[in-house]
Amino acid sequence: MEIQQVEGSVVCTQRIPGLHHVNLRVLRDARGKRVVATDPVGARPGNWVFVVSGSAARYAMGDARILTDLTVGGIIDHWEPDT
Amino acid sequence: MEIQQVEGSVVCTQRIPGLHHVNLRVLRDARGKRVVATDPVGARPGNWVFVVSGSAARYAMGDARILTDLTVGGIIDHWEPDT
Amino acid sequence: MEIQQVEGSVVCTQRIPGLHHVNLRVLRDARGKRVVATDPVGARPGNWVFVVSGSAARYAMGDARILTDLTVGGIIDHWEPDT
Amino acid sequence: MEIQQVEGSVVCTQRIPGLHHVNLRVLRDARGKRVVATDPVGARPGNWVFVVSGSAARYAMGDARILTDLTVGGIIDHWEPDT
Amino acid sequence: MEIQQVEGSVVCTQRIPGLHHVNLRVLRDARGKRVVATDPVGARPGNWVFVVSGSAARYAMGDARILTDLTVGGIIDHWEPDT
Repeated sequence: MEIQQVEGSVVCTQRIPGLHHVNLRVLRDARGKRVVATDPVGARPGNWVFVVSGSAARYAMGDARILTDLTVGGIIDHWEPDT
Repeated sequence: MEIQQVEGSVVCTQRIPGLHHVNLRVLRDARGKRVVATDPVGARPGNWVFVVSGSAARYAMGDARILTDLTVGGIIDHWEPDT
Repeated sequence: MEIQQVEGSVVCTQRIPGLHHVNLRVLRDARGKRVVATDPVGARPGNWVFVVSGSAARYAMGDARILTDLTVGGIIDHWEPDT
Repeated sequence: MEIQQVEGSVVCTQRIPGLHHVNLRVLRDARGKRVVATDPVGARPGNWVFVVSGSAARYAMGDARILTDLTVGGIIDHWEPDT
Repeated sequence: MEIQQVEGSVVCTQRIPGLHHVNLRVLRDARGKRVVATDPVGARPGNWVFVVSGSAARYAMGDARILTDLTVGGIIDHWEPDT
């Protein structure tokens, strides 16, 4: 499960029904690329988190009808990123 | 979920039955690589979108018989790409 | 769905039962890496195609018992590769 | 299945219910990137292991409700990493 | 499906029940990275093979309870690697 840092949220007025009323976070991955993830744990900008991908990402939202492929799995209490 | 920019559409007369009558968008990903995605939200060239991959991509089309592995999940209202 | 170019076919006398009597194409992906894919649309060397991966690849063959993870989804009518 | 080295564990007080009471290991992959994995075999820091990803990762925990996408599949008895 | 070369086997005394009594091959992928795969076709060191990943990898072993995410799909009769 990848380790990424939360940057903020993203607004998408036009989206698929499977993602209505779902918070969309922007995370930056280890290679500096930004991605979008759903977030059932309430991470805040600056938090280091690990993310769950694939079919597990949908179950991680507590409802497999939420059509995500990347979900925040947990907030890491203390993390020293590689410099 | 990856963030990509819509470039246009692609015409494929010969395609699998699981993708008949489906709009095929060309998107450019963060590393500049172009990919094909199905698009249930009606994105236009220049739009920044996030895409859903894996089995969720099929459900995102509203019909799991549509055999895609990448679907536009939503149009990002405002996006500043990394320069 | 990745965009790749068809190079030819590959002969594999020893293969898993789930791929018996199936044409195996060699494709070159955007980074120049060659991969093997199953091909239900009859692509020819030189054709630019898009490929379907994951569980959708099996359904794209019309029979989920065909154990592929990459299937040609369609032949692109006109494609200008990035130079 | 990727070959990675165990570095240690990570503490995540806030995590999804699907990962409660589960040991979370930090592994370093072949490109030096650190990832989080669940570990049913009890690997220790310094061990070289192979990891199972995708839906198999959940079954590898003996309970598909454990929402991981990366699980330690086994400890390699002797491994010489590429220098 | 990726094309890789067989290097040998790996010994893992401690492994998950889902991989007991299964031959574990070490393969080298196109970028020189070594990975572990299960092998139902009996490939030998030096053979060039293609591998099946994802859920298809489990079915390719003839028993979906074998918890692999990478399985040798076939031995390529003749292969000229890119120099």
